[in-house]
Amino acid sequence: MNPEPIFDLAHLAHVELLTPKLEESTRFFVDVLGMSESDRAGDSVYLRGWDDYEHHSLQLTASPQPGLGHYAFRASSAQALQRRVAALEEAGYGKGWKKDNIGHGPAYCFTDPDGHNLEIYYETEWYKPPEHLRPALKNQASRYPDHGIGLRRIDHINLLASDVRATRIFMQELLGMRLTEQIIFDDGSEKASWLTATNKSYDVAIAEDWTGTRGRLHHITYAVDSREAILRAADICLEHNVFMETGPHKHAIQQTFFLYVYEPGGNRFEIANAGARLILAPDWKPIIWSEAERKKGQAWGLPTIPSFHEHGTPPVEAADATPDA
Amino acid sequence: MNPEPIFDLAHLAHVELLTPKLEESTRFFVDVLGMSESDRAGDSVYLRGWDDYEHHSLQLTASPQPGLGHYAFRASSAQALQRRVAALEEAGYGKGWKKDNIGHGPAYCFTDPDGHNLEIYYETEWYKPPEHLRPALKNQASRYPDHGIGLRRIDHINLLASDVRATRIFMQELLGMRLTEQIIFDDGSEKASWLTATNKSYDVAIAEDWTGTRGRLHHITYAVDSREAILRAADICLEHNVFMETGPHKHAIQQTFFLYVYEPGGNRFEIANAGARLILAPDWKPIIWSEAERKKGQAWGLPTIPSFHEHGTPPVEAADATPDA
Amino acid sequence: MNPEPIFDLAHLAHVELLTPKLEESTRFFVDVLGMSESDRAGDSVYLRGWDDYEHHSLQLTASPQPGLGHYAFRASSAQALQRRVAALEEAGYGKGWKKDNIGHGPAYCFTDPDGHNLEIYYETEWYKPPEHLRPALKNQASRYPDHGIGLRRIDHINLLASDVRATRIFMQELLGMRLTEQIIFDDGSEKASWLTATNKSYDVAIAEDWTGTRGRLHHITYAVDSREAILRAADICLEHNVFMETGPHKHAIQQTFFLYVYEPGGNRFEIANAGARLILAPDWKPIIWSEAERKKGQAWGLPTIPSFHEHGTPPVEAADATPDA
Amino acid sequence: MNPEPIFDLAHLAHVELLTPKLEESTRFFVDVLGMSESDRAGDSVYLRGWDDYEHHSLQLTASPQPGLGHYAFRASSAQALQRRVAALEEAGYGKGWKKDNIGHGPAYCFTDPDGHNLEIYYETEWYKPPEHLRPALKNQASRYPDHGIGLRRIDHINLLASDVRATRIFMQELLGMRLTEQIIFDDGSEKASWLTATNKSYDVAIAEDWTGTRGRLHHITYAVDSREAILRAADICLEHNVFMETGPHKHAIQQTFFLYVYEPGGNRFEIANAGARLILAPDWKPIIWSEAERKKGQAWGLPTIPSFHEHGTPPVEAADATPDA
Repeated sequence: MNPEPIFDLAHLAHVELLTPKLEESTRFFVDVLGMSESDRAGDSVYLRGWDDYEHHSLQLTASPQPGLGHYAFRASSAQALQRRVAALEEAGYGKGWKKDNIGHGPAYCFTDPDGHNLEIYYETEWYKPPEHLRPALKNQASRYPDHGIGLRRIDHINLLASDVRATRIFMQELLGMRLTEQIIFDDGSEKASWLTATNKSYDVAIAEDWTGTRGRLHHITYAVDSREAILRAADICLEHNVFMETGPHKHAIQQTFFLYVYEPGGNRFEIANAGARLILAPDWKPIIWSEAERKKGQAWGLPTIPSFHEHGTPPVEAADATPDA
Repeated sequence: MNPEPIFDLAHLAHVELLTPKLEESTRFFVDVLGMSESDRAGDSVYLRGWDDYEHHSLQLTASPQPGLGHYAFRASSAQALQRRVAALEEAGYGKGWKKDNIGHGPAYCFTDPDGHNLEIYYETEWYKPPEHLRPALKNQASRYPDHGIGLRRIDHINLLASDVRATRIFMQELLGMRLTEQIIFDDGSEKASWLTATNKSYDVAIAEDWTGTRGRLHHITYAVDSREAILRAADICLEHNVFMETGPHKHAIQQTFFLYVYEPGGNRFEIANAGARLILAPDWKPIIWSEAERKKGQAWGLPTIPSFHEHGTPPVEAADATPDA
Repeated sequence: MNPEPIFDLAHLAHVELLTPKLEESTRFFVDVLGMSESDRAGDSVYLRGWDDYEHHSLQLTASPQPGLGHYAFRASSAQALQRRVAALEEAGYGKGWKKDNIGHGPAYCFTDPDGHNLEIYYETEWYKPPEHLRPALKNQASRYPDHGIGLRRIDHINLLASDVRATRIFMQELLGMRLTEQIIFDDGSEKASWLTATNKSYDVAIAEDWTGTRGRLHHITYAVDSREAILRAADICLEHNVFMETGPHKHAIQQTFFLYVYEPGGNRFEIANAGARLILAPDWKPIIWSEAERKKGQAWGLPTIPSFHEHGTPPVEAADATPDA
Repeated sequence: MNPEPIFDLAHLAHVELLTPKLEESTRFFVDVLGMSESDRAGDSVYLRGWDDYEHHSLQLTASPQPGLGHYAFRASSAQALQRRVAALEEAGYGKGWKKDNIGHGPAYCFTDPDGHNLEIYYETEWYKPPEHLRPALKNQASRYPDHGIGLRRIDHINLLASDVRATRIFMQELLGMRLTEQIIFDDGSEKASWLTATNKSYDVAIAEDWTGTRGRLHHITYAVDSREAILRAADICLEHNVFMETGPHKHAIQQTFFLYVYEPGGNRFEIANAGARLILAPDWKPIIWSEAERKKGQAWGLPTIPSFHEHGTPPVEAADATPDA
C-alpha cells in the first residue's frame, strides 16, 4: 500500500508583502482591487478579500525594498499543527514560535531551503464585519463590494527559488503538499513546480530565479469569480492607469485565466479566475511540461512575456542572469 | 483539543440514475448536456463530463421507475477505505463487497439510515480519451466539448430523506463528512442539511421528504464553469424543448447559481456554477437558516417553486404529504 | 414602390422622472446604479450613464407623486426636426417650443394621444467630463465607473397607455418609428407594442394600462454590456437592500435579459443587456405574440410577475381595473 | 444648416470570400464557427449566422488564391437604391446590374477607387429555416446553435487599400457612410478609417496596404453576444487546432473585443463581441488616433501583432513593402 496523503495544511492563509510605498500600495489594494482594511499596527496594514474568513489575508509592511516578508498556512487542526512543527524541528528548518500575532494565534516560524520565511498556525480570529460590511447572505464572510475589482479571496503565492527542486521536495515532505504540475527541461532541470494542500489545483508555485538569488517573490494571486470579472478588472485597471504586464489570457499550465499587474510598491500581482477547476483525485499524477511545450506560450498562443523572467522582488542586479523564455 | 477532521472520503465519485427511458435519457445527457459515453453493459450506459477523471461519473440504468440506483464515494487512500469499511461494519450499515465493477475496483456497499444505497472504493480506472476526445491541454481529462451544454464534472447529489437528522449524523459520524449549512425550523426540526468531504461547500444535500417515504432522490447536479455558461444552457434547453423547472437564479443557501430541468426519465437535474466559492476553513461553523429565512426564497427574491416540494423520484402517491414552502 | 422609411429621429435622448424622494432617488441612481450627476437646477437633478454622450439622459424632478415628467428624442438633423414639428403641428399634437433648456437647444413640446409629454430637439450639448471622469480611451463619453452597477446608457421607455393602438399609430405616423413586436389578443385588442427609431430592437414600448388611466409610466430602462453584468447588478442590489421585482431572466418578447427594481421614489426601473441583437432589416415584419403565447411567460419559463399588471406610476386606485396575466 | 445625413444603406449584407480549399473552409465555418449552410451552386457555398435574416451573409467561392470576391450592402428602400445607383453612375464607378442572384434581387455592381468589388441591392429573400433549424422564439432568424462557436451575424469587413483616404471619401460621398474613427500619422497620412451605415460603430474599415497593392482584404468579422462567448471561442479553436493570430483582447480603437484566426483558405477571420456600444449621435465627431497612440497597442497593453501588417489576402510578394507598427 502507498503511504497516505497528508492533510495537515488547511490552506494558504496570508502573505506579508513588503512595499516601499505603503500608503500608495494600500490605496491600490483598497480602491482599485476592492479589498477591505482590517487593521493597522506598526508599519503594517492588514487587508482581506470579501470572502476571506480570517482577520486578514494580506499584510502590507513598509520596507525599503518590495518583496516577500513571510507567508503562512493555517493547519487543519491543533494536532496537525503539532505534527508539522515536530517534523520541521526534526529536519532543522524551525525557527521557533511567535506568540503575539495580529489576527491569529501562536505561529511556528520556519524557512524553506531557499530562504523564504513561512509560518504555520491553527488558532485564528474569524473576521467579524462592521455594520457597513455586513453581508446580505450570512454564508459569506462580508459584503460583496460595490467598488473596485472586488477580489474574493487569496488564491496562491508564486515564489522564485534558486533551487526549485529542493524547495518543492521540502513542501512535499515537510508540509505534505501534493505536486500537481511541473516544467522539466530536456536536461532534467526542474524549472517550476506547482503544489497544493487543498482541492485547488495549486496553492504554491515555485519558479526558477534566473539570477540565482535565494528567497525572492514572483507574485501573489487573488481570485475573482469568473473570466468576465477579470476582463472587467482590466477595464478598471485601464481607467486607473495601472500597469498591466500581460493578460487577460489563459495559462496552458493550470489553465488559470489571468491578469498580471504591478502594485505601486513594485510587486507583481495576479488577478485570477478561481473557476471550477478542482483536483479531486487523491492520487493525481503530476503533469510534466517539457521545454518545447513551455516555448508554445500561453493556452491560446500568447507568447510568454519576457519580463516574466526579468522582474522579481526584491529587484536584483541581473548581471549574471541567464533568462530563458 | 477538539477531535481532528477526517479526510477519508476523497470526493463524490458517481451516481447511478434509474430511468424508464434509457435511450432518451442517454440522448439527453449526450446531445443536450454534452456528456460523453464511456461504456455500455447490460441495462446500463456509463457517462462522464469532460473533466471527470474517472471512467464515468454517471450510470444510467433501465428501470420501470426513475430514481436513485446508488451513489458512490472514492476514498482518499486504501487505508482510508479500510477505516471507513471497519466503521460501517461495526455500526451495522454494511452490506459487503462488490468486486466486479465497471470503471473501478472493489466497492464496499452500504445503506444510509434512510435506505439510500451507497458504495465506497479506492482503486479506480483513469479515463483514457480516444483520439477524437483527446484534449489540446494535457492537464484536463478530455476534450472541451464543442456541442451541447458541456457539463464539466459531477458536483453533488441531493437526497430526499424521511429523517434528515439521522441521515446527516450518519454522514458525519460514519463517513467523516463536514456539515456546512442547514435549515432548522422553529420547532427544532431539521428540514435540510448540506455536507462536504472536500473544499467544495457541499457534495451531498439531504432534504426532508414531504411524503415520509424513505430513500428517494431530489436531484443530482453537474458543474459548468460560469454563470454565463448556465444562461447559455437555458438557451440551449429552450431550443431543445427541455422542461426548465426553475432558474437560472441564485440560491441563498450555498449561493449556487442554478438551472433545474427534468431529464426524459423524470429525474430532476441541476446545472450549477461551481464557481469560486470554497470552504477552506477546517473548522467551518455550520450556517443555520430559519423557517422565516427559508420563506424569503432564493437570493434575488425568486420564490421557491412549489414543485420543489412535490416532485421527487421515484414518484409516490402524496396522499399523506404535508408539503411546506 | 412602398413608401420609404423615415429616419428623422436619431434616438431616445432623455427621460424626466418624477420622484417624491429626490435625494434618495439621486443617491440610488449615483451610488447603486453608478450614474454620474451632471447638474442640479431648481427641483431637478441631471444624470447620465458613463457612455451617454449628451449632457444628461435622466432628469429627476421632485414631485408629490412618482411618474413620468416628459421624455425626449433627439432629431437626426435640423431639417429632420423641422419636418417632425411641421407634421405634429398639422396633426394638432403640438404645444410649442421650449427655448431655455439645460443640456440641449430649443425643444418642441407635444403630447401623444394618451397624454404623455414629449419633446424633440436637435441642438445638444456634448458631455465634457471633468478630470476625474475623463476616460482612458477617448472614444467613450466618460470614465468606466469603478463603483456601483455602472449603467452604460439610456435604452428605452415603457409607457402605460389607455389606448395602445392609438399611441402606437401616432409613433409610426407622426414620428416615423418602426414597429418591431406586438401582443395582439384573440379578440384583436392590441395589448402592447414595441417601436424603434434606431437599429436597437426598440426605443419605446407601450403597454395597456389595466386601470384605463392615461399617461402613466411602466418603467424606464438603462443598458449594461452583458448578461453577467446584470447578474452582478442583482448581487449589488441584494447588498443594498433594493427591492428586486423580477429577474434576472430573459424576456421571450425582444429577448431582453432583464432585472426589474423599484427606485426609492417608487418608479419601476429595468437594467437590461443591450447585447448584440439589432434590427438591421429596413423592412422588418413585426412579430405578433398571441394571448396564448403571452401566457407562457418569459423565455425560460418564469411566469410573468403579477405586479407587472398592478404597479405603474403614478399609482392609481385600481378599483375598476381588469388586469390580465 | 449642415447637410442631412444619408440613410440609403441599410447594412452590410454579405461578403464573398475566395478560398483555395472550398471544402475545408466550409467545414471550418460550419463545424467550428457554427454557421449553417443555406445553399450550394457552381463553385460557391452560401452560409449564414443564426440571426442573419437574409438567405446568406457569406459566400465561399473556390479560387486559386484566397481574398475578397465582392461584398454587398442592402439599401434601405427601393428609392434609396435608385439614388445610390444614380450617384455611382454619375461618378463613373458603376459596372451595371446583375439580375440573376442567389438569395437576393437585382444588384448594382461597382468598384471603389481601390478596386474592391461591391454590390448594392434592395430586394431580398428572407431566410426560412427548415424544421430542424426553426427557433423556439419566433423573433430570431433561426435556432441558436448547440454546436461550435455559434456566430450570430455578419458584423464588418476590413479592407486593405493602397489609398485609404480615397476609398474612405468614396464611402462617405457616394454611399453616405459616416466616419467614426481614424488613424492619422504625424505626416498627415491617413492609415486607417472606420465607417458606418448603421448604429453599429463601424460596418467597414479601411487600412493601408503596406505593399501598395490595390483591392486586398484584411479580414471579415462576425459577431457573438458577449466577451465570454469569445473566450469560449478561443477554447474551441484550441481544441480544433485553429491558428489564433492574436487575442482574445480588446482594441483601443472601437473597443471591439476580438479574436483573430485564419480560416483554412488563408483568409483572416475575426470573432468579435458586438456588445452594447452603439453610435447614436447623428453628428458623431470622428475620433482621431495619432501615430503615438497607435504605438501603444491594444486597450489593455497587448502590442499589435506584426503579422497584422504582413498578412493580407491574396498574398503578395512584399518586396517593396514598408510595414509600420
